[in-house]
Amino acid sequence: MTKKHESHMRWAIALALEGAGRTSPNPMVGAVVVKGDKVVGEGYHYMAGTPHAEVHALEQAAHRSKGADLYVTMEPCCHQGRTPPCVVEIVKAGIKTVIVGTKDPNPIVNGKGIRFLKKAGIKVVTGVLQKNCVSINEPYNKHVVSGIPYVTAKVAMTLDGKIAARSGDSKWITNGECRKFVHRVRGNVDAVVVGGGTVRKDDPRLNVRIKGWRGRQPLAVVVDESLNLPRKSRIFKRAKGKTVFATTVHAPKSRSNWISRNGFEVIRCRATGEDHVFLPHLLNQLGDMGITSILLEGGGELFSDFMKRKLIDRLIVCFAPKLIGGDGIDFLPGISIDKMKNAFELKDVHFQTMGDNFILEGNLR
Amino acid sequence: MTKKHESHMRWAIALALEGAGRTSPNPMVGAVVVKGDKVVGEGYHYMAGTPHAEVHALEQAAHRSKGADLYVTMEPCCHQGRTPPCVVEIVKAGIKTVIVGTKDPNPIVNGKGIRFLKKAGIKVVTGVLQKNCVSINEPYNKHVVSGIPYVTAKVAMTLDGKIAARSGDSKWITNGECRKFVHRVRGNVDAVVVGGGTVRKDDPRLNVRIKGWRGRQPLAVVVDESLNLPRKSRIFKRAKGKTVFATTVHAPKSRSNWISRNGFEVIRCRATGEDHVFLPHLLNQLGDMGITSILLEGGGELFSDFMKRKLIDRLIVCFAPKLIGGDGIDFLPGISIDKMKNAFELKDVHFQTMGDNFILEGNLR
Repeated sequence: MTKKHESHMRWAIALALEGAGRTSPNPMVGAVVVKGDKVVGEGYHYMAGTPHAEVHALEQAAHRSKGADLYVTMEPCCHQGRTPPCVVEIVKAGIKTVIVGTKDPNPIVNGKGIRFLKKAGIKVVTGVLQKNCVSINEPYNKHVVSGIPYVTAKVAMTLDGKIAARSGDSKWITNGECRKFVHRVRGNVDAVVVGGGTVRKDDPRLNVRIKGWRGRQPLAVVVDESLNLPRKSRIFKRAKGKTVFATTVHAPKSRSNWISRNGFEVIRCRATGEDHVFLPHLLNQLGDMGITSILLEGGGELFSDFMKRKLIDRLIVCFAPKLIGGDGIDFLPGISIDKMKNAFELKDVHFQTMGDNFILEGNLR
Repeated sequence: MTKKHESHMRWAIALALEGAGRTSPNPMVGAVVVKGDKVVGEGYHYMAGTPHAEVHALEQAAHRSKGADLYVTMEPCCHQGRTPPCVVEIVKAGIKTVIVGTKDPNPIVNGKGIRFLKKAGIKVVTGVLQKNCVSINEPYNKHVVSGIPYVTAKVAMTLDGKIAARSGDSKWITNGECRKFVHRVRGNVDAVVVGGGTVRKDDPRLNVRIKGWRGRQPLAVVVDESLNLPRKSRIFKRAKGKTVFATTVHAPKSRSNWISRNGFEVIRCRATGEDHVFLPHLLNQLGDMGITSILLEGGGELFSDFMKRKLIDRLIVCFAPKLIGGDGIDFLPGISIDKMKNAFELKDVHFQTMGDNFILEGNLR
């Protein structure tokens, strides 16, 4: 029975992942309707505002739902959102057993969907491939509980840990394959975040540039205390409403006015003692805007500020087999640790090679 | 025919590698005698001063050598060394065909062995799995031609490219598996080389510490301009004759005398403008001592001096998934490169994971 459950749940997870990059602020969810040993309906949540996975699967199964089993990666919802509650549809369809990967951590659901189904006389099996079902939605899980986006930092480095040569030149550290990988990562987050220094130095576009890309373009967030950014920066050529500028309450009004007049939002945050943007305040405000995940792309100062406050959930390091020497620009200039045993450590580390480059990912929290 | 040749040569290479860490200053060589389709003799060079691979294989084949084929990873020798020339033995044994992986780059052989065999009426096939046969003996190949040892640098780093915390503390960066790997690498080189700073800071033993290790212990070479080393350092507890101290012509006589009196050799090298040991001179002297390979283990200054003069052939980087911050100690403090396109680049990069650590190797020349 467990084997069968896991097999169908694995398929439901694969379906869920089809929604990658589009479901936010909702989770990715997949569902499969099984009658006897036969899959009679499949569905996944395609995009926020469109029907949930269960609804697609039940529609496809139609009359065959009666007496069938429904596999769903996350507990069906029991609240009226932009779409009607799924539990009602499940009962209506005559489903006999619902096999659930994980509870919905959303405080307004969190077990209520399961209780609703049980009360309606439906058998509910929970915890099938639970870890996997939880892990596909880390940004949602964090945001729906804490209101704060899931923070992934991405950095490209030489083997000797430098993010640029001493002149600031960083074009390019990694190979084309690695850079494509980064674009796919960008395509799966709600916002890309960089410091003003990176805008002044690299003039990035911060969009997803993949041939044939039909997914969303992330919001760009520029964190800069001075707002002293060249007016010709490519960042100002992005669509209005697709870039926001985060600064402190002390930033010159003249500059923030110019930015606002040009159709971009300015977020004012509390300032730290060093007059840097107080990042927890920024993350709260981004969370309130419905941003569930951000990709932090540098530079070193902003990486350090995030690290110091332990705000990075996941780190992606793209390495090129190059050496640039000790005068190069450090990844974490603002971090100073006295003993090796006090170093930050990544957990659940995963490696992959990209030609002669390689990528390491791990969790920092 | 080629398939058969490659298959037997692959086996000869595997045999050759059995000599790893013991054959220096000779190359690793493997040999297989084949009669019909049957292997009737196998051999490898076990250790310098003992018989060559071909001799072992012919002895094992005995009378079956007559009319048989001999596969050998490197051209048989034609000179009287510590053992008689192999080509004579091959002719005596009645071998019909000799299949050779690669020529012996030793200027006193370098094709003469092959010509001798041909003159004696033996058919010679050359270049079977040549690349592989060359690559197993990089240290020999370099040393026998240039007189200079093959230089492998090994460094343990945090993800952000630091070889120690700001205090100098580096115990431990990598995990036990990685450190075991390094001991195996040490077991395969003629000498381990470190700077005096590393002796003062880490007090290393520089020996191979593997349970049940029966191979050689490498020579330890300490490079230090001042020779100002604590007299209680573990380095002075190594067997006499197994540690040498490399310094400049300017080093205080009192200190070098103390070292000599205690039974350790002092090598005086020309000094650079900065009064560092002139490394090409050191490598020449080590080469003259029969050292065909060295493992350079740090610290940062010595790494930088070797890098600057492009004296590193191969780099092994052991990474731990840790972050120690920008104040940590750099791998290459003395290297300063302005543009990313001018970075040193590793070729033929190879990766392996060791638990949550990982190791990258590549060629710098």
